[in-house]
Amino acid sequence: MRASRTLNIGLCGLGTVGQGVWKHFGRLRADLESRLGARISLHRAAVRDLGKARAVRIARSKLTTDALAVATDPDIQIVCELMGGVETARRVTLAALTRGKIVVSANKALICAHGAEIFAAARRGGGHFLFEASVAGGIPLIKAVREGLVANRFPRIYGILNGTCNYILTKMEELDAPYASVLAEAKRLGYAEAEEALDVEGWDTAHKASILAWLAHGVWVRPEQMIVEGIERITPADFVNAEALGYGIKLLAIITRDFDTDQICVRVHPTLLPRDSVIARVSGVYNAISVTGDVVGTTLYIGRGAGQDATASAVISDIADAVALLVHGKGAQFMGEETAPADGRARLMPPERIRGRYYVRLTVADLPGVLARVATIMARNRMSIASVIQHPCDREGTASLVLTTHESDERSMRSALRALARLSSVRGEPLLLRIGDLGD
Amino acid sequence: MRASRTLNIGLCGLGTVGQGVWKHFGRLRADLESRLGARISLHRAAVRDLGKARAVRIARSKLTTDALAVATDPDIQIVCELMGGVETARRVTLAALTRGKIVVSANKALICAHGAEIFAAARRGGGHFLFEASVAGGIPLIKAVREGLVANRFPRIYGILNGTCNYILTKMEELDAPYASVLAEAKRLGYAEAEEALDVEGWDTAHKASILAWLAHGVWVRPEQMIVEGIERITPADFVNAEALGYGIKLLAIITRDFDTDQICVRVHPTLLPRDSVIARVSGVYNAISVTGDVVGTTLYIGRGAGQDATASAVISDIADAVALLVHGKGAQFMGEETAPADGRARLMPPERIRGRYYVRLTVADLPGVLARVATIMARNRMSIASVIQHPCDREGTASLVLTTHESDERSMRSALRALARLSSVRGEPLLLRIGDLGD
Repeated sequence: MRASRTLNIGLCGLGTVGQGVWKHFGRLRADLESRLGARISLHRAAVRDLGKARAVRIARSKLTTDALAVATDPDIQIVCELMGGVETARRVTLAALTRGKIVVSANKALICAHGAEIFAAARRGGGHFLFEASVAGGIPLIKAVREGLVANRFPRIYGILNGTCNYILTKMEELDAPYASVLAEAKRLGYAEAEEALDVEGWDTAHKASILAWLAHGVWVRPEQMIVEGIERITPADFVNAEALGYGIKLLAIITRDFDTDQICVRVHPTLLPRDSVIARVSGVYNAISVTGDVVGTTLYIGRGAGQDATASAVISDIADAVALLVHGKGAQFMGEETAPADGRARLMPPERIRGRYYVRLTVADLPGVLARVATIMARNRMSIASVIQHPCDREGTASLVLTTHESDERSMRSALRALARLSSVRGEPLLLRIGDLGD
Repeated sequence: MRASRTLNIGLCGLGTVGQGVWKHFGRLRADLESRLGARISLHRAAVRDLGKARAVRIARSKLTTDALAVATDPDIQIVCELMGGVETARRVTLAALTRGKIVVSANKALICAHGAEIFAAARRGGGHFLFEASVAGGIPLIKAVREGLVANRFPRIYGILNGTCNYILTKMEELDAPYASVLAEAKRLGYAEAEEALDVEGWDTAHKASILAWLAHGVWVRPEQMIVEGIERITPADFVNAEALGYGIKLLAIITRDFDTDQICVRVHPTLLPRDSVIARVSGVYNAISVTGDVVGTTLYIGRGAGQDATASAVISDIADAVALLVHGKGAQFMGEETAPADGRARLMPPERIRGRYYVRLTVADLPGVLARVATIMARNRMSIASVIQHPCDREGTASLVLTTHESDERSMRSALRALARLSSVRGEPLLLRIGDLGD
């Protein structure tokens, strides 16, 4: 080993991911040191509770409850922010970057909320911010988009970015089981958090979509500016209907750009995808992302999007990049860090102007004339119906009415939905899903 | 733009890939320059024929027929070797590396034949050798394995690495068409070379397998040391048989390592894959590679494996890495370049000891007793038969007999094959395919 210099790593957060990093790093250290030409030490870790039992063995002297002390420790060159949450994580990240340290982060909520501030702090302080683990877990997607596909502009990036939702949707379809019972089982198995809202309502996916949109287009899009819809209202019947129409249902992030108008669309919603497409067939906790570049065509990336080991794999690859940067210089992975990673010219298309095809499921009174009233409302909103499936509901006297439409836009669809919801013969809230003619 | 320094690129070879690089680079230059902080110029190009008409416009003064002059030009810092072939390419590559230049290569045959010498020359001369375009075309697979998955050891890497073969197999299955007619059509469409042997006999896939095995395990394995079988003897009937058994047929490179014994297997052969696996469903000219890491689990990469644009995308990403290296330092992508990229402890398992399940198709005389004789030979070689499909052949008086076996090894299977071929009731050469229980 040629190592001389010692680089110290500080961990802020020693939960599932932090312990995964600690565990695997211990095993890999000698190998990484020999490849990178430096000694690397896990120097200190900040935890919430010093006394808590952990699966990894760490000398008590290395632990502190003060994450900021780790971030500002002059002996530490690389800070891994693995706490989650936004406010403390932001303070820790900015404190480290201001001091010229390298921060490795898996915190998509933080990046989405404060990415611009974080990258500005890195620029000013001479630090660097690495975030491979924040999107698509163990799949090296950030590196692929940023470096491997540097010759490309990206007319379309879309995919499954939340393993919890994909697990729930997969099980609902496989077992013909309702959302609530599958969610409960997912919690029991540890595939869903006790507080599931961030995942199932689509916000976690939106955070990741925001990061990908920034990488690809140099623009920060906030979840509030996107269409963000979750999976909570999908029923087993929707999978049956989708199948009859030739589709599967996936929660997708979709980021598209029209390079003629320089408008981008960023949205997160359950999507009907052709059943024989690769992404429609990705099941369980896996993530799958389709990246279309204007030179390379479409490339597809599949792997575990979360979990201790997959996330640790990504964090450790960032640590290796950080060590290489400190030992050998910046290299390709940091190019464009001082400017935006892409041109930044793109403007966000207002969500109501996004065009697409739709799937609408209504529960209606099983009476003559209902379909006529529904069809009239659709026509008034210039929505052209492509297909109709009607069948009796479990609830007596009601029927399930499923419409699919030809291409229209969000404004028309929403206006139609509001009118449909006001019909006396429509029971409960209509369910809207979107049809993704995305190909692979 | 902060650019001050100008970096000059020399192209050796201006065929399909070279012209693709020239075309896209022209469009991307301003953007890359601003991101990388240097002026970048396509300085000179070596061609075989100065007078040839080309799709890209290049000043005659930039062209030369002397590739070595480009490789040794003191004004050129980055040499793209896009000539193909081995001997001249080797001289050009070594000349540039010896002078401390960076060489970008798409030449898998060269790397496979002379990789050890090339990397040694880079080390000694202070140059660097980048080869993202050599495997899986536009998919940033080298970067993923080398950097993104640096925390992993690789018990298994396998996939479709030759788009021509995958196109031919896809069309044979779709159209129920014989190999020869599909090959002729593929040549007409430009999906197969006039000289198809390198592709269809599996050698091109073997070159790429060799590079991946070196990346993952630090060991150079030559095609002569592998099982390498091509697709020429597969018939439409084999797809029908495979489907009846629940399989599709793909030409795969399979690289496995047992970390207990530190033995690696590297092989290239048509493989029966479960029909519902993602890779079995990748059709046409696409490549698909499954990479299993011991930390991250399985990740999967799909995209165009060849063609002007996909290859240019990879070459340009290497050029960007090269520029970043020259401007900013080495960065992560060059770590481990001075040592092997992996530990190098692995030893090659002798091919005859590789274990697996087999598919054997025999054309036999349609007479009583034949199956008994075949079964006896299998039993004598300790091969256990799992299933038998027999149906009449087009040729009168003959039948097609398809056996699948339980797990055995290559030595037993080959011994059985020799004995089967000697049976008077067996007509022509038996066809052996291997069954891949690889999962995704």
